[in-house]
Amino acid sequence: MGASFTTVGWHQGRVRLIDQRQLPDKVVYLDCADYRDVAEAIRNLSVRGAPAIGITAAMGLALGAQSLAGRDPSRFQEDLTRIADELAATRPTAVNLFWALDRMKRVASSHRHLGVDVLIRQLVDESQAILDEDIAMNRAMGAIGATFIESGDTVLTHCNAGALATGGYGTALGVIRAAWEDGKKIRVIADETRPVLQGARLTAWELMQDAIPVTLITDNMAGALMRAGKIQRCIVGADRIAANGDVANKIGTYSVAVLAHHHAIPFYVAAPTSTLDLSIPSGAHIPIEARNPREVTHIRDVAHVAPEGVAVDNPAFDVTPADLITAIITEKGAFRPRDIHRLGGDPASLTAYRLA
Amino acid sequence: MGASFTTVGWHQGRVRLIDQRQLPDKVVYLDCADYRDVAEAIRNLSVRGAPAIGITAAMGLALGAQSLAGRDPSRFQEDLTRIADELAATRPTAVNLFWALDRMKRVASSHRHLGVDVLIRQLVDESQAILDEDIAMNRAMGAIGATFIESGDTVLTHCNAGALATGGYGTALGVIRAAWEDGKKIRVIADETRPVLQGARLTAWELMQDAIPVTLITDNMAGALMRAGKIQRCIVGADRIAANGDVANKIGTYSVAVLAHHHAIPFYVAAPTSTLDLSIPSGAHIPIEARNPREVTHIRDVAHVAPEGVAVDNPAFDVTPADLITAIITEKGAFRPRDIHRLGGDPASLTAYRLA
Repeated sequence: MGASFTTVGWHQGRVRLIDQRQLPDKVVYLDCADYRDVAEAIRNLSVRGAPAIGITAAMGLALGAQSLAGRDPSRFQEDLTRIADELAATRPTAVNLFWALDRMKRVASSHRHLGVDVLIRQLVDESQAILDEDIAMNRAMGAIGATFIESGDTVLTHCNAGALATGGYGTALGVIRAAWEDGKKIRVIADETRPVLQGARLTAWELMQDAIPVTLITDNMAGALMRAGKIQRCIVGADRIAANGDVANKIGTYSVAVLAHHHAIPFYVAAPTSTLDLSIPSGAHIPIEARNPREVTHIRDVAHVAPEGVAVDNPAFDVTPADLITAIITEKGAFRPRDIHRLGGDPASLTAYRLA
Repeated sequence: MGASFTTVGWHQGRVRLIDQRQLPDKVVYLDCADYRDVAEAIRNLSVRGAPAIGITAAMGLALGAQSLAGRDPSRFQEDLTRIADELAATRPTAVNLFWALDRMKRVASSHRHLGVDVLIRQLVDESQAILDEDIAMNRAMGAIGATFIESGDTVLTHCNAGALATGGYGTALGVIRAAWEDGKKIRVIADETRPVLQGARLTAWELMQDAIPVTLITDNMAGALMRAGKIQRCIVGADRIAANGDVANKIGTYSVAVLAHHHAIPFYVAAPTSTLDLSIPSGAHIPIEARNPREVTHIRDVAHVAPEGVAVDNPAFDVTPADLITAIITEKGAFRPRDIHRLGGDPASLTAYRLA
């Protein structure tokens, strides 16, 4: 069972995206023919979710490469780097964005001898490979993560780490999807996830598409439900994971982790290894995007909910320290956060550190 | 310094309320000539906040008494009880509602020999006394609570426990107001308080009216700000306090208390003794109102934020256990939650248990 919609993909030579700003009211697809449209779609949250941003940026760079057909090879490489920089500047926190663009740039530079036309085809293929691998990784992660979920569990998730945040299966919701496919009777509690309401608009919608039972709550209800014994596990995605296992994810994730810790409820992070940033020792080094105050003072840019001129804080992400995380579930296995740096080393040695 | 608006009061023989549903966009007053209009205003949240609900219900009962002019005395008492029951059925959690109506009924029954006309005047006077005492209690509470706040502090508050929630000064915001009047340089962080957004719409507005510095955040940002060392104290109001010091207050209060505990940040509750319900041993006995799912799926009844037909939980309140509360600040002093039941005993013995 995959999702019944397309988050991002090639469609008749264009990059097709479901416009997540319009969900759940309307299912509208955006077809981007220009890399600038792709950059704008990332910036304005038409597409969001760390893995989906990476895939989309890779496809955007392939579109950019197409626009450079006919350039001489060295000019091609230069202009491609400029376009990659432009795409990289759209959002600061999700490391998959930089990971995907670096991977695309490596293809271009390592095959520079092949000629521009061949390179362009290779870049389009590479972006498709990133998408295909993402879905395969999500399914692997789902199978691993599902072992942590028992029939009868109610699982809380924050934001949207689903098919809409990835190539089409999901990280946190991929684990939930896999448990559901295994026949486990589970229920999902979706935090609405202010200010942009990814939980209410996207997670609830996505789970309802697949008839997985979901109940929507406001972010501030999670603690009371935990105290009432109504939540057995929490699972979220990640935008960046530092070498020590600290996890940056959507604002509010940290509060959920503290609440879960207080109630002795397991708290899992599901993320592909492309989310790892072993170059930084801890979460303190992860840049946190501050977004427009209007996201807080308005809701869906329509309803005005605060006095004119009020001061606002609007960090888009927070960092959950490793010691509040029960396990990080990747496509290579589930690990204790303190062991996550081993994923950068010898794959053969990983077995000893795998939890499942 | 009191607030620059009227939350509730008598105005030309009618009960005047600021329509809190329309804040902060419009300042509109409702003038109620019939007790049924008062009941509806409580039910639909035109007026909210435990102390304000109590005052409003008392004035509503006085209006009801006026409508009974000319009745024979025993019929008057019967009909008054029926009207009180109707007002009591508007909302289940705030105990001040029942406290105020009981106080009014006692006036009516203990002076039943005086004749209906005199009784009606006494009930109007009693409702005004409840308002006047509320303001005096809030000021006393403010003076006591302000001693817990230091210049330089940033104080987080949840929901609105301000002038808008009371007779005109505030419980939690009364403490903040008093610290500000003392010349302490403080800042306030206001949680927006989904689903009804009392923090964004009311607390931010109320503090801006009085030029007290306030920054608005979504509920799920509080943890990240605490971790960053940006919050020194938390203070909230209460809808009902059990004999063991457990506190029912707006949904999300419990999460703030757990987060404060995790970060060793003092967490205060400010509430008049009319909020105490010593008849119940613990918070487990406090009825929690479940409100319309539409409050969650829509925002301000305008912006639709969730898929059609999604399941929703919408408890309006939660219970914070006594052990997460640093002190309960009342007009009679500040107390450790475990000592709060002593307020039902000999006032002379209280001194030993006072914190400030």
